[in-house]
Amino acid sequence: MGQIKSALRRQTEGIGARRIYEDLRDQILARTYGTHGVLPSSRSLAGELGVSRSTVTVAYEQLAAEGFIEVRHGARPRVAKSVVGGSKSRAVDALPTHVVPLSEFGKRLRKDPPKWTAPSGHPAVNFRYGDLSPADFPVLAWKKAIIAAVTRRPARLAYDDPSGALRLRTALQGFLWRSRSVRCSVDQIVVVNGSQQGLDLCARLLLDAGDRFVMEDPGYLMASHTFSSTGAAPVPVPVDRDGLQTARLAGIDARLAYVTPSHQYPLGGVLPIARRHELLAWARQRDACVIEDDYDSEYRYDTKPVPPLHALEGGHNVVYLGTVSKTLSPTMRIGYMVVPLALVSAFAAAKQIMDRHTPLAEQEALASMLESGAYDSHMRRVRRRNAERRQTLLDMLRRRFGDRVRIEGAAAGLHLVAWFDDLPQRSEEALVRTARSKGVGIYPISALFDRRRQGRARPDAVGLIMGYSALETRQIDKGCRLLAAAIDEIREQ
Amino acid sequence: MGQIKSALRRQTEGIGARRIYEDLRDQILARTYGTHGVLPSSRSLAGELGVSRSTVTVAYEQLAAEGFIEVRHGARPRVAKSVVGGSKSRAVDALPTHVVPLSEFGKRLRKDPPKWTAPSGHPAVNFRYGDLSPADFPVLAWKKAIIAAVTRRPARLAYDDPSGALRLRTALQGFLWRSRSVRCSVDQIVVVNGSQQGLDLCARLLLDAGDRFVMEDPGYLMASHTFSSTGAAPVPVPVDRDGLQTARLAGIDARLAYVTPSHQYPLGGVLPIARRHELLAWARQRDACVIEDDYDSEYRYDTKPVPPLHALEGGHNVVYLGTVSKTLSPTMRIGYMVVPLALVSAFAAAKQIMDRHTPLAEQEALASMLESGAYDSHMRRVRRRNAERRQTLLDMLRRRFGDRVRIEGAAAGLHLVAWFDDLPQRSEEALVRTARSKGVGIYPISALFDRRRQGRARPDAVGLIMGYSALETRQIDKGCRLLAAAIDEIREQ
Repeated sequence: MGQIKSALRRQTEGIGARRIYEDLRDQILARTYGTHGVLPSSRSLAGELGVSRSTVTVAYEQLAAEGFIEVRHGARPRVAKSVVGGSKSRAVDALPTHVVPLSEFGKRLRKDPPKWTAPSGHPAVNFRYGDLSPADFPVLAWKKAIIAAVTRRPARLAYDDPSGALRLRTALQGFLWRSRSVRCSVDQIVVVNGSQQGLDLCARLLLDAGDRFVMEDPGYLMASHTFSSTGAAPVPVPVDRDGLQTARLAGIDARLAYVTPSHQYPLGGVLPIARRHELLAWARQRDACVIEDDYDSEYRYDTKPVPPLHALEGGHNVVYLGTVSKTLSPTMRIGYMVVPLALVSAFAAAKQIMDRHTPLAEQEALASMLESGAYDSHMRRVRRRNAERRQTLLDMLRRRFGDRVRIEGAAAGLHLVAWFDDLPQRSEEALVRTARSKGVGIYPISALFDRRRQGRARPDAVGLIMGYSALETRQIDKGCRLLAAAIDEIREQ
Repeated sequence: MGQIKSALRRQTEGIGARRIYEDLRDQILARTYGTHGVLPSSRSLAGELGVSRSTVTVAYEQLAAEGFIEVRHGARPRVAKSVVGGSKSRAVDALPTHVVPLSEFGKRLRKDPPKWTAPSGHPAVNFRYGDLSPADFPVLAWKKAIIAAVTRRPARLAYDDPSGALRLRTALQGFLWRSRSVRCSVDQIVVVNGSQQGLDLCARLLLDAGDRFVMEDPGYLMASHTFSSTGAAPVPVPVDRDGLQTARLAGIDARLAYVTPSHQYPLGGVLPIARRHELLAWARQRDACVIEDDYDSEYRYDTKPVPPLHALEGGHNVVYLGTVSKTLSPTMRIGYMVVPLALVSAFAAAKQIMDRHTPLAEQEALASMLESGAYDSHMRRVRRRNAERRQTLLDMLRRRFGDRVRIEGAAAGLHLVAWFDDLPQRSEEALVRTARSKGVGIYPISALFDRRRQGRARPDAVGLIMGYSALETRQIDKGCRLLAAAIDEIREQ
């Protein structure tokens, strides 16, 4: 009795049948009344708790209905034998609860989990790559598009096509041909939750444990992480100013190669046509798949976009990956892939197993923005803005560091690489710490080199990947000033 | 020359540098000019095409910039050696393009892909389970919530928490305790793209090829499909009116068990407390994981909700799965899971690898609906509507078929099972075809029995899973009338 009352006192809500039911249930499961023990009569419990008898009766009826107690007319309710009785079940309960064992995939992830830092932990001026400025988001156009999608009334709300909404895929087909010279049928397009899901789809459909995959070195860590999670092993191939050194592919046997030909991440090189052919020839010879991540091709500041591998190859061995994470928002989780015709059904089936399909309203909204041209005009606007940010960053780096900074990969995209050749590798950690203490977030490129090649491939200098798309020009100015101060400080040490 | 002009005539757009550039590029890649072949001078090509010489020059400059052609002052442009030259590359091109080989996962999916039928293929009255009526969607409330989410301005647009937005997980924690007696910490909640992604996460993190998993028989095919895609094998355990026959678990060794205790899919039984304890004891003994799919517990028409396994167990070996696919829309792709504390980091890492996180705007919108109580009042409304639909279906089945129909599982959820005991199994196909010809979509339960147990476990009668949540009452009326006509027709045969 006392137990019930104290249990109830703990509760913030008022006493009702539901609350009484829950407390009695918890106490029964906690063996408060022992095996087949007797509960208070509804009258006495009602008196104890100062509630009407009918309230208690409701609770008892629910407990009886769920098999917790047995109620016989005239007698006091008893804990049902089945609930806690029997030596077997007691013996089982005596066992400690072990941790559920993980699959091989789970063990690999636990051993080497991908990183993620909460936005709250960000410094005042953050040069982290990949973030966008909320000021650039086309709030009005998107609002219009999403409301149209939400208010639209289909015949019934049902699961849609795993490959993506036909309307969006049709709009994307035109967009890809118009803007990237990628020719494909609507069937080849698969809408995914950001290019990350595209990478995971490729990993699961193309790699088995023990297989090998080619990675650019330095390269995109999340891609390497995703492919490695299958148990496959990366084969790092060095990158120079022109991107992947395709000559080094000869003799490498791998199931797939991950590349960023239009703007190598992170070094920023554009893969020349001859290397593109060399890469494709390598893939054809080995029936390997080339995953072309066209993550930021919308941003080019001097030359026109280079035709993607997909356009050259006809896409027999090429999976083309695109995303709106760099043009609309990384939080929207919409990307698209163009897959070889022979793999269309496999990709659709895998997407269905993974999450049925990408949320429909977003797909409809993006489709209408592509159809109306709102997406194109948005692109023109953000391209201008990012060109300004880029110019500001180039000017400020020049002003603060003169010839002591060497810039790479600034011709395209939303980041550049700043090399400080007179700063030895070993000063990197101190620089990051000092900069952070001044409120600047900087990200050394060293983390993106394959660990096994660290030191060898990498120049003995500090290189920073500087993303600018989330910063306003005055922040970029401030950031460079503080970075200069940080560099001076560690030089004095 | 002629080739260029005909190529250009094919184009709908006017002749510009871009178009000339593209056609020349395609022709170069198609070996039109042969290895290191000579192109027309800009003057003569301009004349041929009737465009200004500068237009052609721009196209040539772009081709040169991309390494397609070599331009020497005074001389006519030549196809760059690197593009098509060299016997090696020709030899490579001679190779046929093979199909990229699939992983074991891919092969399994290709062999036995999940089904999906385009909405266009649906009959007038469709009793398919899982679809909802657009009339039930809370357009105004959702519009309000999604607009607030879209217009919200964070510091920067950046990837969010892989486990889900903190605001939504906090709202869900309260919701789960309030409505389902599930007590958990916010850390244990993972927001997923519909329960399907939750199933896939469990499959990948808990199963390896060669493992075994327990499935209800008959049961939810997509779950079995998802777990099987890892190479694990199902162990079908028969279901009766009270759900899974847990007594049959003794001696079964498996890594996980998938169950629908609050409303067994498809038979509709509610798992009694004693069986729940038996199931949990089995899981504890084997360190197996119980996946509790609470897919439609919001809909109960007579009794109160039974406490989930998670509430009984404290969730040590239980993964709890919930979704808004049955309350808001299956196209929204939002679900949530409550995972054991020991597995929180593994689930977060896997979710990040799979797609970074669930789209943020939807998460924010759902959170605000949960906070404001708009979700609860929406639930009350749709619960009423579906209670009406259910009653209409029960009445109509009774009126059309009297005692010749036996109803199961109508106490909860959005479907019931109608058994026609005087119709032998073999008449099933004919009935489906005839009903379809009359404009009624019906779905036999036989498809949901484990193939290896077909015939044995199943009564020799036609049983239909009848979903009603997408139908208005007059459609339900019409559907039953047409179904009766179809049954009469096949009886006469």
